[in-house]
Amino acid sequence: MLPFSRVTVVGLGLIGSSIARAVKAYMPTVRVIGYDADPEVREIATRISLCDDVTDTPGAAVIDADLVILCVPVGAMGAAARDFAADLPADAIVSDVGSCKVSVVEALAAALPGAIVIPAHPVAGTENSGPEAGFASLFQHRWCIVTPPEGVSGFAVERVKEFWRQLGAEVETMTPAHHDLVLAVTSHLPHLIAYTIVGTASDLEEVTQSEVIKYSAGGFRDFTRIAASDPTMWRDVFLENKEAVLDMLQRFSEDLSALQRAIRWGKGDELFDRFTRTRAIRRSVIEQGQDDSRPDFGRAHD
Amino acid sequence: MLPFSRVTVVGLGLIGSSIARAVKAYMPTVRVIGYDADPEVREIATRISLCDDVTDTPGAAVIDADLVILCVPVGAMGAAARDFAADLPADAIVSDVGSCKVSVVEALAAALPGAIVIPAHPVAGTENSGPEAGFASLFQHRWCIVTPPEGVSGFAVERVKEFWRQLGAEVETMTPAHHDLVLAVTSHLPHLIAYTIVGTASDLEEVTQSEVIKYSAGGFRDFTRIAASDPTMWRDVFLENKEAVLDMLQRFSEDLSALQRAIRWGKGDELFDRFTRTRAIRRSVIEQGQDDSRPDFGRAHD
Repeated sequence: MLPFSRVTVVGLGLIGSSIARAVKAYMPTVRVIGYDADPEVREIATRISLCDDVTDTPGAAVIDADLVILCVPVGAMGAAARDFAADLPADAIVSDVGSCKVSVVEALAAALPGAIVIPAHPVAGTENSGPEAGFASLFQHRWCIVTPPEGVSGFAVERVKEFWRQLGAEVETMTPAHHDLVLAVTSHLPHLIAYTIVGTASDLEEVTQSEVIKYSAGGFRDFTRIAASDPTMWRDVFLENKEAVLDMLQRFSEDLSALQRAIRWGKGDELFDRFTRTRAIRRSVIEQGQDDSRPDFGRAHD
Repeated sequence: MLPFSRVTVVGLGLIGSSIARAVKAYMPTVRVIGYDADPEVREIATRISLCDDVTDTPGAAVIDADLVILCVPVGAMGAAARDFAADLPADAIVSDVGSCKVSVVEALAAALPGAIVIPAHPVAGTENSGPEAGFASLFQHRWCIVTPPEGVSGFAVERVKEFWRQLGAEVETMTPAHHDLVLAVTSHLPHLIAYTIVGTASDLEEVTQSEVIKYSAGGFRDFTRIAASDPTMWRDVFLENKEAVLDMLQRFSEDLSALQRAIRWGKGDELFDRFTRTRAIRRSVIEQGQDDSRPDFGRAHD
């Protein structure tokens, strides 16, 4: 049973283009319509046959849809929804893929009064951006978190969940506020830290940038990967999930100060204890299939 | 031309066992002797035929060597060297693989007065530990930094450099102090940050540990990898390279505070500028072969 038959993707970047590809790959009879505010992205999407049709206006993209998925930076959700509000069919379900949910729920409710809005967040991505960076298997074995508003039809929620299951994702449900707290620690804080350390390294006077790059295999390299993520998307995430991010950042800074103090005062036992505890988490990440166990830190050249 | 014909590896963990394997793979006529202070490690090394011989005492391991490489945690270098000092041939070269060099140079000079000591640091590794975690190709296309003390024979330095080249590494020379500063930013600070964030995440009350693990593909996962590194090795690195690590940590904290302030006051342009600059570094890391460009953040399951 296909949950939807006419899916519209608004925003054809990494995630939007991966959804388009995944629908064509796993639900080949479903019609996929695409729209992007950037004419260049629309042109690329048309050239690489990403969708069955790419429209020149947002209204034309949604007019016949039974599911519309917003795949734009979280700060642009409200405006993107307003642009097609007048043409949205009354029975269409609107969803999104934003990395924070409280602000998106508010923005979509304001932009689309009376519409059926069921936000979601597939926890998947790569450090690359744009319509050519997507791939159909991106959501396979990844979690998709659905945050249904109170009072919404259970059948509508089930259709959105089934849509993500058919793209290969595991589906979980939580409130928007809890989602934003969980993601603040598992995704937003790591990105902020990675952006910071890569910035710190590039500002040093005593160590040249060429040295930083040459010797990056010692650990720094792993941070450059996530610090290469899309700047617009991440600017919006930090602005829109401000409270949860600042809370996590405060805890992180306290913990870092404690380690700093242990180093300054030569407290080896305290460092050892701390470094031992973190191994168990790594084991669980691997056991639960969220990473593989092959040593990757010293990535082999094929 | 082989730079050495009888190599002794003291400490048969990830790096020591990789050196033993690499010598057997790329210099098959060279005799490799191994020693480890842990009888269980010696037994494993013997069982898996890691070396031509594994001795029960450090003295027996070095007695016939022309190169002795210390592959123990940096805080254990002095004691490990003292244990074989009496049996070290006068013309043998002693080297090591420690992640910081100023303290190791001092410790080895004190433990081995009159010996030829030429420290080195292969910038390579994985998050796994122990004699079975090593592999012969670990050093291929990785940098090895040699830090020759003043006044040492240029020919001896050249032999150590040639040894690393034959294991597949690119070799660079610098002073111990500069090495420690460069590695503080490219390796020590990243590990400290990763250990911290994984600890912070596991201490939360509002978010369960199972949620942290489930949604780790959003970025957190990349930190668990390096936070799974050997606790003893890293405790020693932070204690022995204290000044450089604390300096880098101070700079990092200032930069993090600036971003925190930008988030609190909603300064989107400042965030965007910062997040844009870091992409160029990522590009260089890939161009210089220190990582590959395949998107790995959303690791595919084969």
